[in-house]
Amino acid sequence: MTTISRLRIGIAGLGRLGRRHAENLARRVPRAELLAACSPVEAELAWAKQDLGVATLYGDYHDLLADARVDAVFLVTPTSLHAEQIVQALQAGKHVFCEKPLSLDLADCRRVEELAAAHPRLKVMIGYGRRFDPSYRDAYDKVRAGMIGKPFLVRSQNLDMNDPSGFFVRFAPTSGGIFLDCTVHDIDLARWLLGDPEPVRVFATGVIALHEGLREFGDVDNGVATCEFADGQMACFYASRTMAHGHETSTEIFGTHGRLTVGQNPRLNRVDIADAHGVRNECTPTFYERFEEAFLREATHFVDAVLDDRAPLLTLHDATEATRIALALRESLQTRRVIEL
Amino acid sequence: MTTISRLRIGIAGLGRLGRRHAENLARRVPRAELLAACSPVEAELAWAKQDLGVATLYGDYHDLLADARVDAVFLVTPTSLHAEQIVQALQAGKHVFCEKPLSLDLADCRRVEELAAAHPRLKVMIGYGRRFDPSYRDAYDKVRAGMIGKPFLVRSQNLDMNDPSGFFVRFAPTSGGIFLDCTVHDIDLARWLLGDPEPVRVFATGVIALHEGLREFGDVDNGVATCEFADGQMACFYASRTMAHGHETSTEIFGTHGRLTVGQNPRLNRVDIADAHGVRNECTPTFYERFEEAFLREATHFVDAVLDDRAPLLTLHDATEATRIALALRESLQTRRVIEL
Amino acid sequence: MTTISRLRIGIAGLGRLGRRHAENLARRVPRAELLAACSPVEAELAWAKQDLGVATLYGDYHDLLADARVDAVFLVTPTSLHAEQIVQALQAGKHVFCEKPLSLDLADCRRVEELAAAHPRLKVMIGYGRRFDPSYRDAYDKVRAGMIGKPFLVRSQNLDMNDPSGFFVRFAPTSGGIFLDCTVHDIDLARWLLGDPEPVRVFATGVIALHEGLREFGDVDNGVATCEFADGQMACFYASRTMAHGHETSTEIFGTHGRLTVGQNPRLNRVDIADAHGVRNECTPTFYERFEEAFLREATHFVDAVLDDRAPLLTLHDATEATRIALALRESLQTRRVIEL
Amino acid sequence: MTTISRLRIGIAGLGRLGRRHAENLARRVPRAELLAACSPVEAELAWAKQDLGVATLYGDYHDLLADARVDAVFLVTPTSLHAEQIVQALQAGKHVFCEKPLSLDLADCRRVEELAAAHPRLKVMIGYGRRFDPSYRDAYDKVRAGMIGKPFLVRSQNLDMNDPSGFFVRFAPTSGGIFLDCTVHDIDLARWLLGDPEPVRVFATGVIALHEGLREFGDVDNGVATCEFADGQMACFYASRTMAHGHETSTEIFGTHGRLTVGQNPRLNRVDIADAHGVRNECTPTFYERFEEAFLREATHFVDAVLDDRAPLLTLHDATEATRIALALRESLQTRRVIEL
Repeated sequence: MTTISRLRIGIAGLGRLGRRHAENLARRVPRAELLAACSPVEAELAWAKQDLGVATLYGDYHDLLADARVDAVFLVTPTSLHAEQIVQALQAGKHVFCEKPLSLDLADCRRVEELAAAHPRLKVMIGYGRRFDPSYRDAYDKVRAGMIGKPFLVRSQNLDMNDPSGFFVRFAPTSGGIFLDCTVHDIDLARWLLGDPEPVRVFATGVIALHEGLREFGDVDNGVATCEFADGQMACFYASRTMAHGHETSTEIFGTHGRLTVGQNPRLNRVDIADAHGVRNECTPTFYERFEEAFLREATHFVDAVLDDRAPLLTLHDATEATRIALALRESLQTRRVIEL
Repeated sequence: MTTISRLRIGIAGLGRLGRRHAENLARRVPRAELLAACSPVEAELAWAKQDLGVATLYGDYHDLLADARVDAVFLVTPTSLHAEQIVQALQAGKHVFCEKPLSLDLADCRRVEELAAAHPRLKVMIGYGRRFDPSYRDAYDKVRAGMIGKPFLVRSQNLDMNDPSGFFVRFAPTSGGIFLDCTVHDIDLARWLLGDPEPVRVFATGVIALHEGLREFGDVDNGVATCEFADGQMACFYASRTMAHGHETSTEIFGTHGRLTVGQNPRLNRVDIADAHGVRNECTPTFYERFEEAFLREATHFVDAVLDDRAPLLTLHDATEATRIALALRESLQTRRVIEL
Repeated sequence: MTTISRLRIGIAGLGRLGRRHAENLARRVPRAELLAACSPVEAELAWAKQDLGVATLYGDYHDLLADARVDAVFLVTPTSLHAEQIVQALQAGKHVFCEKPLSLDLADCRRVEELAAAHPRLKVMIGYGRRFDPSYRDAYDKVRAGMIGKPFLVRSQNLDMNDPSGFFVRFAPTSGGIFLDCTVHDIDLARWLLGDPEPVRVFATGVIALHEGLREFGDVDNGVATCEFADGQMACFYASRTMAHGHETSTEIFGTHGRLTVGQNPRLNRVDIADAHGVRNECTPTFYERFEEAFLREATHFVDAVLDDRAPLLTLHDATEATRIALALRESLQTRRVIEL
Repeated sequence: MTTISRLRIGIAGLGRLGRRHAENLARRVPRAELLAACSPVEAELAWAKQDLGVATLYGDYHDLLADARVDAVFLVTPTSLHAEQIVQALQAGKHVFCEKPLSLDLADCRRVEELAAAHPRLKVMIGYGRRFDPSYRDAYDKVRAGMIGKPFLVRSQNLDMNDPSGFFVRFAPTSGGIFLDCTVHDIDLARWLLGDPEPVRVFATGVIALHEGLREFGDVDNGVATCEFADGQMACFYASRTMAHGHETSTEIFGTHGRLTVGQNPRLNRVDIADAHGVRNECTPTFYERFEEAFLREATHFVDAVLDDRAPLLTLHDATEATRIALALRESLQTRRVIEL
C-alpha cells in the first residue's frame, strides 16, 4: 500500500446519491482515483464517462470485482444488495465503503461482521455520514471534552421536505420503513454521542399525515420513538417525510452541565430576509445541501484510512447496532408494544 | 352580579407562587379586589397586610369561606388539598380559581367535576396558565386558522434550571412526580393545540441525572413520554429538573403544511452579548419570568369570566384529562410498560 | 404631597399616542389617577369619558391648568406647542410629563430649562421612553457594570414600516424632519449609553426612496448620520420610514471588551414559523407594540418621581441635547457639510 | 490555451494568506496546477516543496516571470509591490491574480488599468473575495432578481477580533490604514450590490479604542464612514480591529421592498450551547474561517476564466474604484472634512 499514492476506486450504483459520491471521488477527494463505474443503467454509465471521465465502465458488479486494478469499491446500491455485495467484495480482496444501512436483516449484518473480521487487512465502512459533518464533529468533541458533563439524553430528528411525487412511497417495500431508512442516522448519532451505550428497550409509534399509500406496507410518514439504554441514558427520535420548509436534521445532547444543539435552524446560508413575510431565512431543501461537506469528509476519511492502514472511525458493529435498534423500532410501531432488546 | 363592579377575592396559600397571584390580584387585575388572605403561616399574612394592604386575614380556610363578602377564592395551596378545598368552596357558594393540577387522584377530579356541574352558576377554573401566554395564544390562533394545515404532532418540554438546594426532592412525596408536577402543563398544551383529541396509549421513561434522592419515590429528574391520540395525532413530552441555562418551556406543533415553534430560545429579553463566550443571550431563570404576563392574563380572564358570566376557556374536564394522562405516564415510567387509556 | 396617595393627572392631547398614555394612566399606572382630559376634538373627549371613565373634560388647555385638583399634566400635543405648554403648566404649579421632542427650537428648550430651574419643586420630564424599555435598561446596566469595558461606539436605528397613506409626509412641515422626529430617540440612547459625552461634530445625509412628497420640505425618508463626541466616542444613526417587515429599533454598543445589541430581530413574540417561506418570525408592526412596556414604566417612573419627590432619570438638559444634535444633523443633511457643535 | 487542460500557476508570496492560496491551488482548484512558488523566505519555499510538492522554487520574482511554462501568477505580496508586479507580469505575458487592494496609489491603479487594456488576451483580477462567498452571491442574485425592489442603502462592516500582539500596528505604515486595509472590501461589496453607482462625497471618522501605537500613523482601530452615491444611493461602513468575539463581516442591503442581511451572527458552525453563559454559539475567529469557501471559489473562478477565455466577474476598474473611495475616506478621517469625489 505504501507504494501507491492514490486509492483506485470502482463505484457501483449511480443513482441520485451515487452520482454525488462519484463526483467527490473523481474531483474532490485528494488521494482517490475513480477508476471504474458500474451500473445496470446505460445512461448512468454514459454520464460517468462524459462528465467525470471515468474510463472503465461495467454493467455487471462481478466484472468490477474482477478488475485487478481496483483497490476499493463504493457501494451506493439498493439496501437489499448491500450485504451480499460486501461479502463478494471482501472475497475479491477489495476494501469496501457502503451506504447505510448495512442491511435490513440482522443475520446478514452479523455475517458481514464475521467475514470482515476474517479479513483484517481490508477496511469496511458503512456510510453514517453525519459523523463527518463539521458541526456534529464539533459537538462530539465538546461532549468528549466534558463541556456538558455526563450526557444522558439525545433527541434527534430527521425531517424531510415533502416530496409530492411520493417517490418514497414506491420505495417503501424495499426501504424497510421510516425507522430503517431515516432514523438509523439518528440512532447512530445517539450511540456515538452517548458513548456506545447498550440498548435496553424501545417504544415507537407514528401516523400517516399525508401519504396514505404507505398504509399497505405498515409504514408511516411521521414516526416517533424512544430508546432506553443501560446506565441511565436514553434517546428520543423523530422522523418525518412531510415538512414544508426543507430538510432539517437536528440533534440535542443533554448533559448534567449543559446542552448542545446541532442544526436547530436548517438555514441554507448566512442570508436573512426582512420583508412582508417577517424576518426569515431559506432552508436546505434536501439532506445533500445540508451534508455536502460531510459526504466529502466521509469519503476522504475512508480513503485515508485505507491508504494509511488505520481503522475507520465507524465500525461494522456500529452499523449492526443501528440496524438492530431500528428493527426493534419497526416492530414496536407495528405491534404497539414495548420491545426489549 | 351585574351590580358589582369588582370581584371580591380571597386567596388561600401565600407561598412563592401564591404571593405572585396575590400581587396581581391586588394591583394589576383591573376588575379584581383582593379582599382577604388565608394562610397558616403568620409571616405570610403579615406580608399580605403590609405589602398589599389586604385588610382581612384568616388562619383557617373555613373562616375564609364563611366570609360572606368574598365572591371567589384563589387556591394556591398544596395539591393534596385542591379537590377538597374546591368542593368546600362550591358548597359555600364561591367561584374558584385553583392552581394546577386539579388533583393527583382521578376519582377526586371526577367528584369535583360532578359537583361543579351541580352548581352551574359558579365558575371553576384550574390554572393551566400557558394557554394565556401571548405566544402560545398566537400559535393556537394560527393553528385554528389553518396556517399549518391539520396538526398531527405536538412536542413540548418543560425544562427547569437545576436547583442545587433540591427543593423539589423534598417536595417529591406530595408532588406526584415529574409528570404530574411538570408535564401536566405540556399535556394540557398538546390537548389544546391538537383540538381535544382522545388519548389512546402512552409510554414513558426517565433517568436520574443528578438527584439521587428521588429514587426512593420512584421519581426521576429527567423524563420523556409519548402519547398516542385517536385519529392520527400524537404528542412527545420531555421534562427536566437539571438544566444549566435557565427555565425553558418550548413547544412545536407540526401540521401538514408547516410547523410552529413557541419558545425555542428562552431568551430573557432582547439583548445579545458578543464577547469571549461567543454570541449569546441570557435566559429566563424560572417559569415566573417566562410566564409573568400569562399569570396576569389568566387571572384577568377568570375575573372577567365570573363578572361577565361567561364560561372560562379552560374546563374542569381539561384538568381531569391532564391528570388522567399524567397518571398513565407515571404508571408507564414505573412499570416500563405501555399503558392503554 | 405626603397626604395624597395617588397623583391626579390631566392629559392634554388624545391622538394615537395620547390615547395609549391615557389608558395607561387610567388603568395600569398604580399610583396615578386620570382626573381630567383636554382636547379640541369632541370625539376624543367622548372616548375618554366612555371608555376610561374620565369625569372632567376640557376643550381648552387653560381650563385644565386652572383646575386646582390637577397635580400634573401629561402633554401629548403637537411638538410646536410643547415649550409654551410646559411654561404655562409650570407657572400654574403643575408637574409636567411631555412627549419628545422638547422643542424644535433650541432657544425654546433653554427657556424651558431655565424656568424649570426656577421651580425646583416641580418635576418636568420629556418622554424619551426607550430608556424605560427592560432590554435597553438591561444593556445600560451591563455597560455601567463594565461588562463590555469602555464603550466607544453606539450604532442605533429607528426603522418604521412603510405607511402607504403617507401620514408622515403631511406631518413633515411640523415634525422637523426625520432626524428631529425619529433620530432624537437614538441620539438620546447614544448619550445615555456612552455616559453623556460632549458632541463635537456631525455629518448626515439621506435619500428619498419612496416618498417624493418630502422633497419640498428638504426632508428624506431614509437618513444616516455620524456624530463624533469628545474623548474618543462616536455614534452612527439610521432612520427609515420605508421598511417592509415592521418597526425595528435596534442599537449596538461597542466597548473595548465586547458588544451589546438590543433588538436585533424585531420579533413580535416567541413564535417561529417553518413553512414554504422558510423559517421566520413575525415582527412588531409599530413602535407601540415594541415599546408598550416601556411606555408603562415611563409613566410609572414619572408618577413615582413626583409622589416620592425624586429627580426623574431624564433631565431637561438631556432633552435639550437631543434637540441640539438633531438640529445639527438636519443642517448637515441640507448643506451637505460637516457641522461643528 | 485550448490544448492545455490545467492552468500552470506560479505563486509569489507565501505568508499567512499566501499559504492558503497555495494549498487551494495545489489541492482543491480543479483545473489548476501549482507549478512554481516564489518567496524571499527560505523556510516558506521549503514548506511549498515538502507540504505541497511544488517542484520549482524561486527566490526572485523575475525568475518566476522568466519561466516559460508558467501561464499565470498569483500575487500575495505586500500591497506596495502589487502594481509594479502586475505590470511586469503582463509584460511577461502572464495572466494575473493579485490580492486586494490593487494599490494605495490611484495613479498606479490607472497605470495598471491602461496596461491591461493593452493586453486584452491576458486576464487580471484583484482578489475581492467576498463576492465569491455563497451567501453574498445569494444576496446579490436576490437583489438583481428584484426581491427587495430598488436597493438604496448598504451598511457593511468588517470587524476583526482583537490581536493582542498588535501585528497590524507594525503593519500600519504600509497597510494604508484601516479603510484601505479593511473597508475596501465593504466598498467593493457596496458598489457591487448597488449596481456600480458613482460616488459623490464621503465622510469618515474614527477612534483609537485600544491600540495607541496607531496614533503616529494617523490611523485608528475603529473607523466609520458614509459614502453618498449619485442617483439616491448611499453606503455606511464600519471597520474594527478590537472585537472580543471573533471576526464578523456583515452587510445589510436595504431596498424599497425589503432588506437582506448577510452574516448577522458570525457563527462558527451549526452548534448552539446552552449552559451557565446562556444560549450561545462560537464565532469564526478570523476572516479565513469565514471565507474559506469564498477563497476557493475565487481561485476557481479566475482559473476557469483564463482557461475558458471569459472576462472575470471583477474588473480592474472595480479595484481602482475601491482604492479611490478608500483614499477619500482616509483623507476625510485625517482632515475631519467632507471629501467630494
